[in-house]
Amino acid sequence: MKTKARFYHAGCPVCVSAEQNVAQALDTKRYELEIVHLGEHKNRLAEARELGVQSVPALVLGDQPFHINFGASLDDLS
Amino acid sequence: MKTKARFYHAGCPVCVSAEQNVAQALDTKRYELEIVHLGEHKNRLAEARELGVQSVPALVLGDQPFHINFGASLDDLS
Repeated sequence: MKTKARFYHAGCPVCVSAEQNVAQALDTKRYELEIVHLGEHKNRLAEARELGVQSVPALVLGDQPFHINFGASLDDLS
Repeated sequence: MKTKARFYHAGCPVCVSAEQNVAQALDTKRYELEIVHLGEHKNRLAEARELGVQSVPALVLGDQPFHINFGASLDDLS
């Protein structure tokens, strides 16, 4: 059973770099990766907030949020 | 040829969580992971700074630094 990995971003340059490097570096044998563009899918902002995401880019492994560098705060995407 | 991945930390709780989750989630077929405790190996602070690391925990993939959440600034470890 793979662990769910969710990568939240907003298309910003910092986000793209984190996606292409950190998110794509995950072991796909152990993690099932979903990429979520919060700018295009604002209906998922609440879910991201509930998981503890405060800014993007952020990687949520299981239910633990990890903020990677800083692109934009979630408040700016609302 | 594997890409070098360096995880810099200082033993803090935020660091341990990032190591156990993000660093250990890397695909070891593609990345060769080295864990560096900057509190115990202060002689590697300069190297971390040169790579652009400003705080720990940080993951450097190839030569690109990614700060993961925030544990401590490098200045506080000097």
